[in-house]
Amino acid sequence: MCHHRVIGTALTVVLVSPRNPLNIGAAARAMANFGFDDLRLVDPYEVAFREAVSAVGGAHVLQSARVYATLGEALADCSLVVGTTAGQKRVPQQPVDRLEAAMPRVRQNAGRAALLFGSEKFGLSNDDMSHCHALIRIPTAPGTPSMNLGQAVAVCLWELVRDDTAVAAVNAPEKKTDSVSGEEAERLTTMLLDVLRESGYTNRITAVSTDLKVRRWLRRLRISRRDAPLLLGILRQILWKFRTR
Amino acid sequence: MCHHRVIGTALTVVLVSPRNPLNIGAAARAMANFGFDDLRLVDPYEVAFREAVSAVGGAHVLQSARVYATLGEALADCSLVVGTTAGQKRVPQQPVDRLEAAMPRVRQNAGRAALLFGSEKFGLSNDDMSHCHALIRIPTAPGTPSMNLGQAVAVCLWELVRDDTAVAAVNAPEKKTDSVSGEEAERLTTMLLDVLRESGYTNRITAVSTDLKVRRWLRRLRISRRDAPLLLGILRQILWKFRTR
Repeated sequence: MCHHRVIGTALTVVLVSPRNPLNIGAAARAMANFGFDDLRLVDPYEVAFREAVSAVGGAHVLQSARVYATLGEALADCSLVVGTTAGQKRVPQQPVDRLEAAMPRVRQNAGRAALLFGSEKFGLSNDDMSHCHALIRIPTAPGTPSMNLGQAVAVCLWELVRDDTAVAAVNAPEKKTDSVSGEEAERLTTMLLDVLRESGYTNRITAVSTDLKVRRWLRRLRISRRDAPLLLGILRQILWKFRTR
Repeated sequence: MCHHRVIGTALTVVLVSPRNPLNIGAAARAMANFGFDDLRLVDPYEVAFREAVSAVGGAHVLQSARVYATLGEALADCSLVVGTTAGQKRVPQQPVDRLEAAMPRVRQNAGRAALLFGSEKFGLSNDDMSHCHALIRIPTAPGTPSMNLGQAVAVCLWELVRDDTAVAAVNAPEKKTDSVSGEEAERLTTMLLDVLRESGYTNRITAVSTDLKVRRWLRRLRISRRDAPLLLGILRQILWKFRTR
């Protein structure tokens, strides 16, 4: 007997630079408990994480976890990327929603959604966050440090599978989006950055912050699958024009 | 700034016969994160639990935890007792509610409410359950073992403090958009069309249909007021580059 809400979306949990294998195991356990199995690790500190004893019941999740060198690669097939940040951390560039407020969007996402957790010590970097369509925080008591990684994963996944039919019935479903995948978004980002550089818009000093700004901005626009080829074509033509003088 | 729902009731977390001090510490950490501090232990396996390194941020909860020989003593001042049981465990004597269904009652309880968690290995005994006014389970995926104790405490406390008005607020009406005005959209359109023409993207034959396509496309993107200057700046720079050869 399955007591789960059927989730419309495929969900991936991405741990960025996790340090402690016990936390990776705990994340795998929570995933198994709530019926998820796609775990991805970006640049884990310990390579020997697959035997973590904390993965009780989640060994299959841990065994099949995939390891990536960069976040961009890990997100290639994801159409919605949601980053988590500590309760009190301020992120001036992007709005941060409460956990409860963001999960309906994850449930309704048509493609694969990714939930990102940063390292135990530093959380997600600004660069990591620039890959995100939305940022969420688990609202914790003032003055307490951020949650334990395994506990944070458990709480987020619970929020995703809990059944708020009473609340849900009141709310109309959000429109189905067909946003570009992470890979397509990254291709657009790269080409736009080329255009910015070759046009002289980006100078050396501001290059890094421009990269982040542009990545965030393209994610925020939520360019549809249908529009992506048009935009790519335009950017390609501009580059061609720059180069054929 | 406190983002918490104000809970009408005083809440006590009771761990019955916990074996692993790391789990006790993790429970204390989750309690601190969600603004609770009354932890009680019944007959813990390890007496030396107060130094558990897993209590990051919850050291004060662990230090002030009280130890009891029997469950009855631990519950003496509690007017509502809610026991937790594993997802698939059958409890013939008492109904078991889903976590979400039971928490409103805890919130509305006038006196002190206790949330009971059994030992990692055996859960609550029938005798323990006989002290409970209600039993809850965290619905987990079929075939998986029960949740880790620290993660279960975190999930239950989150369910207690989460704010479903936050969900309703986001979902009810569509968020007010701050899209660009028609005038700004038109300025963007004109400048983008200039870029397309000067780059050679538009040829004479298809010019009219391109104009319409681009205009529709820019409207569909729903560019925000905040993003418009960025996009205008980029287009202006590209045009400048085309013209200064």
